Amino acid sequence: MPSPLPYVHGYQPHEQDRLADQARTLVDLLHGDTHFPAGSRVLEVGCGVGAQTVTLARRSPLARFTSFDVSHESLAEARRRIGQARLGNVELLWADLADLPFAPATFDHVFVCFVLEHLAHPVQVLQTLARLLKPGGRITVIEGDHGTVCFHPEGAAARAAIACQVELQRRAGGNALIGRTLHPLLVEAGFDAVSVSPRQVYADASRPGWVDGFTRKTFNAMIEGVRSRALAAGLATAEGFDAGLHELQRTAEGDGVFCYTFFKGVARMPGTRP
Amino acid sequence: MPSPLPYVHGYQPHEQDRLADQARTLVDLLHGDTHFPAGSRVLEVGCGVGAQTVTLARRSPLARFTSFDVSHESLAEARRRIGQARLGNVELLWADLADLPFAPATFDHVFVCFVLEHLAHPVQVLQTLARLLKPGGRITVIEGDHGTVCFHPEGAAARAAIACQVELQRRAGGNALIGRTLHPLLVEAGFDAVSVSPRQVYADASRPGWVDGFTRKTFNAMIEGVRSRALAAGLATAEGFDAGLHELQRTAEGDGVFCYTFFKGVARMPGTRP
Repeated sequence: MPSPLPYVHGYQPHEQDRLADQARTLVDLLHGDTHFPAGSRVLEVGCGVGAQTVTLARRSPLARFTSFDVSHESLAEARRRIGQARLGNVELLWADLADLPFAPATFDHVFVCFVLEHLAHPVQVLQTLARLLKPGGRITVIEGDHGTVCFHPEGAAARAAIACQVELQRRAGGNALIGRTLHPLLVEAGFDAVSVSPRQVYADASRPGWVDGFTRKTFNAMIEGVRSRALAAGLATAEGFDAGLHELQRTAEGDGVFCYTFFKGVARMPGTRP
Repeated sequence: MPSPLPYVHGYQPHEQDRLADQARTLVDLLHGDTHFPAGSRVLEVGCGVGAQTVTLARRSPLARFTSFDVSHESLAEARRRIGQARLGNVELLWADLADLPFAPATFDHVFVCFVLEHLAHPVQVLQTLARLLKPGGRITVIEGDHGTVCFHPEGAAARAAIACQVELQRRAGGNALIGRTLHPLLVEAGFDAVSVSPRQVYADASRPGWVDGFTRKTFNAMIEGVRSRALAAGLATAEGFDAGLHELQRTAEGDGVFCYTFFKGVARMPGTRP
């Protein structure tokens, strides 16, 4: 299994704000149907700053969570949040996907959110995670897909700026268009009972919380966050990229509309529980 | 208000099959939350072959429907279907959007599905329809948006074939990307309480009914249906277009995935009921 690749979104403080905003806005859409039974052991892969961790652990207070990340900075922030939320059912630890310190068949559930998009070999990682599941255990995977972006007014410069983000992520070994492939990925990794459901964000003037929380503070902020790297990589001129940002901001104004789809997959490790 | 423009989808028998398949597959997704109260008068604009009419009239048996279309051939088929379904609450009639034979403030509800996409001036048409509504009456508008198409495996030839359909519709005065604009269109036309919700089709191997009913028989069949016009217009070569069709068919195979989003808007005619 390959080592995790350079993280295209970075670890700067404003990036952490973006992830926190994203988590708050999307909590119900993405996690509203995720509950873990009392006593079950849940592995959260790549917990980052703990944005999802707090939500998951609050919603399933009698499950026991083991959450890890490869970034010490993110883990420190996650530790602060878990403490602030007074959650006693979360164990945080540093670990590398390439060398996980868990015995086979340890967990009842594995939870993977916004991680596969950064990996060059997602099927191999899913197979590694499968071995950590007890027979009959379940995996939940959530990913976005930048190819689902749809907005009004349409704009070629906005499309080009988004393409910069997709290309940077591709050069870092990831795939910003991975969401649509969750079903074939989980099948190829050997899971059964694979079920994928799209979770679509739709933001227009009648939904100001989504316009602000998602269009502006999540998606547009993410694209703005790769500006310097896109320019350094020669993928865009400053004028071209800024025109794209302007068009994206325009979709959050009065008559603007913005759509984006996340995909959530749930699947089962073959075998029956002992 | 302009006259309706040439109908890009045509009126051939196989086209009617496609519309009927589409209607059956999408009925719950698009119409599951549409009900009209007993005694209410509903105007269905551009009923075509009556695919939606049967669904609507069955679901609201005590509402009275007036459904019209500009095509005599489509109306004949609609008449056959209404009769076969033994529906007594539907009046079918020929009418032209440019010269509607209804008095102002006649209807409690106006229903418009897959019609605005073919019109050069959708806001003007919505304003015309608004005048037929009683004060406080409601309008329901449903449209697709080819810009929301997302599939796996991705393919440039498939994208090019879809672009042919979008361009042909544009040249006929329509807009195959209209779905995302329903909120601003309804606001601009003077409606209030505008509420739009996306209705996303998602088809993978675990949903064979959607793969067959939507990916193959609705979307791919629609693109296949514009092949001769795309070639005649010089928008594609036969080899290029057929490669696109092949890529689209590929998305309906084992590991393929296909997504498409419809948009449903509901809005109110300002004013209070007498």
